[in-house]
Amino acid sequence: MASIMILNGPNLNLLGKRQPEIYGHTTLVDVEAACSRLAASAGHAIRFYQSNREYEIIDWVHEARENMAAIIINPAAFTHTSVAILDALNAFDGFVFEVHISNVHKRESFRHHSYVSARADGVIAGFGVEGYEFALRRVCSLLASSDGA
Amino acid sequence: MASIMILNGPNLNLLGKRQPEIYGHTTLVDVEAACSRLAASAGHAIRFYQSNREYEIIDWVHEARENMAAIIINPAAFTHTSVAILDALNAFDGFVFEVHISNVHKRESFRHHSYVSARADGVIAGFGVEGYEFALRRVCSLLASSDGA
Amino acid sequence: MASIMILNGPNLNLLGKRQPEIYGHTTLVDVEAACSRLAASAGHAIRFYQSNREYEIIDWVHEARENMAAIIINPAAFTHTSVAILDALNAFDGFVFEVHISNVHKRESFRHHSYVSARADGVIAGFGVEGYEFALRRVCSLLASSDGA
Amino acid sequence: MASIMILNGPNLNLLGKRQPEIYGHTTLVDVEAACSRLAASAGHAIRFYQSNREYEIIDWVHEARENMAAIIINPAAFTHTSVAILDALNAFDGFVFEVHISNVHKRESFRHHSYVSARADGVIAGFGVEGYEFALRRVCSLLASSDGA
Amino acid sequence: MASIMILNGPNLNLLGKRQPEIYGHTTLVDVEAACSRLAASAGHAIRFYQSNREYEIIDWVHEARENMAAIIINPAAFTHTSVAILDALNAFDGFVFEVHISNVHKRESFRHHSYVSARADGVIAGFGVEGYEFALRRVCSLLASSDGA
Amino acid sequence: MASIMILNGPNLNLLGKRQPEIYGHTTLVDVEAACSRLAASAGHAIRFYQSNREYEIIDWVHEARENMAAIIINPAAFTHTSVAILDALNAFDGFVFEVHISNVHKRESFRHHSYVSARADGVIAGFGVEGYEFALRRVCSLLASSDGA
Amino acid sequence: MASIMILNGPNLNLLGKRQPEIYGHTTLVDVEAACSRLAASAGHAIRFYQSNREYEIIDWVHEARENMAAIIINPAAFTHTSVAILDALNAFDGFVFEVHISNVHKRESFRHHSYVSARADGVIAGFGVEGYEFALRRVCSLLASSDGA
Amino acid sequence: MASIMILNGPNLNLLGKRQPEIYGHTTLVDVEAACSRLAASAGHAIRFYQSNREYEIIDWVHEARENMAAIIINPAAFTHTSVAILDALNAFDGFVFEVHISNVHKRESFRHHSYVSARADGVIAGFGVEGYEFALRRVCSLLASSDGA
Amino acid sequence: MASIMILNGPNLNLLGKRQPEIYGHTTLVDVEAACSRLAASAGHAIRFYQSNREYEIIDWVHEARENMAAIIINPAAFTHTSVAILDALNAFDGFVFEVHISNVHKRESFRHHSYVSARADGVIAGFGVEGYEFALRRVCSLLASSDGA
Amino acid sequence: MASIMILNGPNLNLLGKRQPEIYGHTTLVDVEAACSRLAASAGHAIRFYQSNREYEIIDWVHEARENMAAIIINPAAFTHTSVAILDALNAFDGFVFEVHISNVHKRESFRHHSYVSARADGVIAGFGVEGYEFALRRVCSLLASSDGA
Amino acid sequence: MASIMILNGPNLNLLGKRQPEIYGHTTLVDVEAACSRLAASAGHAIRFYQSNREYEIIDWVHEARENMAAIIINPAAFTHTSVAILDALNAFDGFVFEVHISNVHKRESFRHHSYVSARADGVIAGFGVEGYEFALRRVCSLLASSDGA
Amino acid sequence: MASIMILNGPNLNLLGKRQPEIYGHTTLVDVEAACSRLAASAGHAIRFYQSNREYEIIDWVHEARENMAAIIINPAAFTHTSVAILDALNAFDGFVFEVHISNVHKRESFRHHSYVSARADGVIAGFGVEGYEFALRRVCSLLASSDGA
Repeated sequence: MASIMILNGPNLNLLGKRQPEIYGHTTLVDVEAACSRLAASAGHAIRFYQSNREYEIIDWVHEARENMAAIIINPAAFTHTSVAILDALNAFDGFVFEVHISNVHKRESFRHHSYVSARADGVIAGFGVEGYEFALRRVCSLLASSDGA
Repeated sequence: MASIMILNGPNLNLLGKRQPEIYGHTTLVDVEAACSRLAASAGHAIRFYQSNREYEIIDWVHEARENMAAIIINPAAFTHTSVAILDALNAFDGFVFEVHISNVHKRESFRHHSYVSARADGVIAGFGVEGYEFALRRVCSLLASSDGA
Repeated sequence: MASIMILNGPNLNLLGKRQPEIYGHTTLVDVEAACSRLAASAGHAIRFYQSNREYEIIDWVHEARENMAAIIINPAAFTHTSVAILDALNAFDGFVFEVHISNVHKRESFRHHSYVSARADGVIAGFGVEGYEFALRRVCSLLASSDGA
Repeated sequence: MASIMILNGPNLNLLGKRQPEIYGHTTLVDVEAACSRLAASAGHAIRFYQSNREYEIIDWVHEARENMAAIIINPAAFTHTSVAILDALNAFDGFVFEVHISNVHKRESFRHHSYVSARADGVIAGFGVEGYEFALRRVCSLLASSDGA
Repeated sequence: MASIMILNGPNLNLLGKRQPEIYGHTTLVDVEAACSRLAASAGHAIRFYQSNREYEIIDWVHEARENMAAIIINPAAFTHTSVAILDALNAFDGFVFEVHISNVHKRESFRHHSYVSARADGVIAGFGVEGYEFALRRVCSLLASSDGA
Repeated sequence: MASIMILNGPNLNLLGKRQPEIYGHTTLVDVEAACSRLAASAGHAIRFYQSNREYEIIDWVHEARENMAAIIINPAAFTHTSVAILDALNAFDGFVFEVHISNVHKRESFRHHSYVSARADGVIAGFGVEGYEFALRRVCSLLASSDGA
Repeated sequence: MASIMILNGPNLNLLGKRQPEIYGHTTLVDVEAACSRLAASAGHAIRFYQSNREYEIIDWVHEARENMAAIIINPAAFTHTSVAILDALNAFDGFVFEVHISNVHKRESFRHHSYVSARADGVIAGFGVEGYEFALRRVCSLLASSDGA
Repeated sequence: MASIMILNGPNLNLLGKRQPEIYGHTTLVDVEAACSRLAASAGHAIRFYQSNREYEIIDWVHEARENMAAIIINPAAFTHTSVAILDALNAFDGFVFEVHISNVHKRESFRHHSYVSARADGVIAGFGVEGYEFALRRVCSLLASSDGA
Repeated sequence: MASIMILNGPNLNLLGKRQPEIYGHTTLVDVEAACSRLAASAGHAIRFYQSNREYEIIDWVHEARENMAAIIINPAAFTHTSVAILDALNAFDGFVFEVHISNVHKRESFRHHSYVSARADGVIAGFGVEGYEFALRRVCSLLASSDGA
Repeated sequence: MASIMILNGPNLNLLGKRQPEIYGHTTLVDVEAACSRLAASAGHAIRFYQSNREYEIIDWVHEARENMAAIIINPAAFTHTSVAILDALNAFDGFVFEVHISNVHKRESFRHHSYVSARADGVIAGFGVEGYEFALRRVCSLLASSDGA
Repeated sequence: MASIMILNGPNLNLLGKRQPEIYGHTTLVDVEAACSRLAASAGHAIRFYQSNREYEIIDWVHEARENMAAIIINPAAFTHTSVAILDALNAFDGFVFEVHISNVHKRESFRHHSYVSARADGVIAGFGVEGYEFALRRVCSLLASSDGA
Repeated sequence: MASIMILNGPNLNLLGKRQPEIYGHTTLVDVEAACSRLAASAGHAIRFYQSNREYEIIDWVHEARENMAAIIINPAAFTHTSVAILDALNAFDGFVFEVHISNVHKRESFRHHSYVSARADGVIAGFGVEGYEFALRRVCSLLASSDGA
């Protein structure tokens, strides 16, 4: 049974607490619970973190090198600015999936470039918080079979 | 019960027929079957097309204006070159999701820009053929509830 | 008496059928009728086409080489992407006028460049469907006199 | 009955006086007369100005705020360099149409960008001096009906 | 009576301690005292922070969401590199003013772009440490009246 | 006692006369009065001008070389286009402060570059008409002491 | 004995029919005949196509995957705009040579970039219609020997 | 005997009056006198103007169309911003020489581009006020002989 | 009978001497022999040079002005950096063909631009050393007939 | 009495020998003679060189460090490509003037940038071969007086 | 005897622990030991730090202002993104040397720009971990003598 | 025992002869002596060259292919302009180290790009003439052991 790390970048601690008429009432705790259930149903476990601190995300990626099969990461603002997270991910050998809740390709042009995408196996954007679940399902598929292309 | 159109752009007719040791043996027929089953399980129906012809894709998008709730599109090479498909999608009022089998963000730089993303609600890339299913699941979620952000 | 070809690019078949509160109820059929009347009043005839197919537009431009005095073209999305239509027009010796219903210069930046403008004698944008009539009037003036600069 | 201001930018005072074998013998006085007749036939009046002075054009646009229904402007060289005229036009609430006698899109690349186009309702280029009349006709149409899109 | 948060980015802890012949002897403690007096005279209170840590600034902006009426921020080097602070500020509903002690527009070209300016209500640069006071005065004016445009 | 020149560029004569629900009812006359009072309270005098004419602004800057201690300038549209005003300011030895009523950094990208900023000691934008007063206060501070960094 | 496909893009059907004083009287039929003779003399056969339709070219490339040893392609205008043809060629395993009749490097700058060149083994431009024969000779050499570098 | 117009752009009225330890004591009056003597010695006459007003320079260029054989112009700041002066010069048929007192190629990058150079027969920069005389000598040579290439 | 100069740029003296398993065993001596035979069979003579010295290539181009009918040049690295060779070729009136052994369009981006192409009648790249022969054949065709377009 | 070096870059040895109907019959020998006479009349001597070899020009600049008061250089094609000549000139302490016979600012865009201009005191272009004489006159003026700005 | 600070940026804590067949078995502890020995042999002491936290690096640079003679820094990913570290180094008066273990100039283009290089006295890249020792030797040389340029 | 070639580009023959108060009195002869001693102490020999001629450097690199284990090169100005030297180095199989005496990253922007870096194993800049010795030490280390990463 594999362990999967789910990482969340800056400002995501506000999820569900702000403008609920727009973003809904789903919080990161809800996302963690949904992912946890989904992983358990496939026999896997997750570790779920959020931080506004770039170094914590780097440290968690380093930690993931020990015993994680995959990293699912919503780097939020660090997507566009952190070479350090890219370098940490480059030192990780498992699967990497990148999640964005909104469709970043429709927003300001500086949000169209992702350092993380250069390392990620896949990227999902604009699927709301379901994006986390789809990334997790994909990891489960890949773990279940190497025939996932 | 809703109808969902799934569109595939140029060269995707070769899927599963070429370099199977790399891309696997999954063909578009297999993808259609999987999507059809998944949609049916949610009470929906799909229409599934592929064409190497830009105009057929435009015509299908026009046709979708009549009675389709969503379009899932893998525009393939037209992603990067077709303003005409973007304009057709701009005239469609339902959900639009964009699928790429490979992670286009890791390939040549001209593949990093998508005209379709300016209209799509969400984009998924690098999830293999499972990307179609996740896009379909997302459409089902959105149809089931307006609380999907 | 001269013949004048009027060509319409992709998605223009939807004109008048979509969001009439915004775009009005004028359809391409109405535009054709108005142009036909205007041309007849000057003793000329028109051929009026629309296609979502780039090759049909190319073929019509080739056909125009036989016996048309002018081409009025609203290339729509092909404005920004079709070198092939530009090359076809480069092989046509008559007058060429380019029409856009909306003011493309106020829209997305990729709509600011037109391949066709490099060949057109004149360009009109943002005059609504009247733009067709003004282009036709200009052609009539030029045919009536070579002193039209 | 409405008043319409027609503004002409620098060097247009030379129109018709220079290289008549190329540009014809039409002068700005002729253009004014033609526009005046056309406006009168629709029950409107025009005010017709030319200046090589950017500030005069700004002042006239300010003056137009009082009682003009529309501004037709051939900004000539100021098209490409004057943010001040753009700002003046932004403070004007009526219709704005931009006219260029030649097809600026076929000339030097610095002539491809127009500050005025960001405010204009429509742009016409390469229709010779008839461009003024077509712009005036368009204004008349729009004044006669709000259904002009 | 309102609370106003004043945030200072990296290296500003050195203010007044380095090259006093150039930058003067004013330290951040002096700036805080001056701002505190000024706010008190208008019946308001300030909270005044400095950090070299991007995450502390993000956390303070989150904290400000609770009960602060405005944020005055000198993001220093983070001005040019931190999308995360921009995103935090985007989640804040009060007034935001951006302060730079020197005129950044006269320095290296990478200092000409500010992520924060896309959110700030106003920006002041090159007014020395008085820039803080002017930003504070502006906040007081805006709080006193909504007629401050 | 020093004299301070306050210069206003094109279209600012419309201030307070247009869209008062947005821009308020403050006119340039009000701004002049407020600045005059503020300067007088510090023992200084102002000269306050507005022009839509670039040359008048140049001439006033030349005039300021005689006996002005500082220039406060809101160059409006000339901010982005006038090298000539920059050159005139380069020939002036006193303090120069640049004022913009709105936050130009949030508007069209061509408004992000200022020729004047290359000469100005400080720049203030988005502080409404209070920006003039803050610039004036800064000049007074600098005149009172050379220790203003 | 090998089969070689020769593909011609849009507007090449006009070859030899237009401006013969400039382009000569050689038509595509002549080119086909010359290539056919040359191939036959080396014991090979050719299939020779022209189309203004991007999809036909894609379909022919797919067809070539069955039993063609090489593709010689003059993509004409599609050179600069068709990612779809590039992708089709990427799925073809034989030799690919790109032919342009004129020297595209001396024409408009948008003709300097070729998507097809990223896949082609060789490119020949400005050799007139002889370019086809030289490309064919090169294919014959490569087929005769693997020592052709 | 020919007439030659010498035009000077904005801020050149300050020549010789500012920082004489750097720029010397030569004023425009001195330059005019030297040019006048030089022209007279060749049997020609000059008209010598300076203005901070773009329109005056345009008007003088128009005036030069009547009876001037050449224009020598130091456009100063207008060099880099005035399409209107370029257009006026394009309507002038005589010789045009562009003079800059300093070597503009060593200054800010925006001074490296000159609209006027696109029309000028020659450009001289960094020769101090002697540049005027050399331009004048060149005009005299060209007038004396058409063999001056 | 005509003379044809064949020029080879820097590092081509290593041809066939380095990594023969990749580049084959063909040396420049072999290329010269093949070209010599081919030219002789058409009644022409060649002069064949290689140099690592830009000036020798320039001098040879000057020499070619005397009595050469054509220059075939593989400028190697000078392709991308030598304006001097371009200028020399611009002073030569015969045919110019540019040869690259590899397909430079598939290599580093700085190899995609050729100064020489602006002067060359034709360009051939990626045809191995056969490119020289095809260029020579083309020259022979052009010499035999002026109807070679 | 000073010595002045006059350097000429590649292809200038062809001056006067090519297209005399366009460029005239003046050769470099004539230019040298004219410069020699002019220098002698001012009591100076010249050394006059031409080379197609970048290194010779570098060596001459090094030689000039010994005893030359000024370098007048027409770098021809090396203007745009030679950092090495710039570096050599940077090690020379005398006057440097740059001459171009034609107006390079009207030619291809790659001719608009000069490495040498970053070091030159002045630049003259488009004055024909008289440009050499004017550069020499300027050097004489500067040598005669340090008040030449 | 001087103190020298050696700083290491994010992910360098993994050095020697990852892919030893590629990067070798040298760890940061080994590097520290080697540097310590080398410094001691020259009579100096080092302080050696690593952090994934940008703020710690900033704080250490501030600390170095107290009593360090030099900073040797391998900023790793922060090289390309941290203006804050640049600003901290700008406030440090000693020697600064920048070390990269790999040759960053051969990697992704975003690694070609370094903010730190704008402040560093020297930069060494691609010398493996020996780069640290060479930087240290250089510091020792500079400390031993001011004649080290 | 290995041989190591040390190459120096244009203008480096002036080292130590110019502005000794800035660059010191070290000449290339001194550098050669120091390198020679250092190499000898490791049992190696050096060949040390300088040239202002690009072709000599190319020829020496070719010569190095015979029997040199490494090339240390200070390409000086050729760093930024010579693709030919890059190509020569690409044909060399030993170690390549690039040396710059000054920190080129702090100088003009055109000095920030190096063609040679694309081939070099390492680059050192701003270490004064000691950079040569460090490059040599690195070569010795690499020759002594393949464990040098």
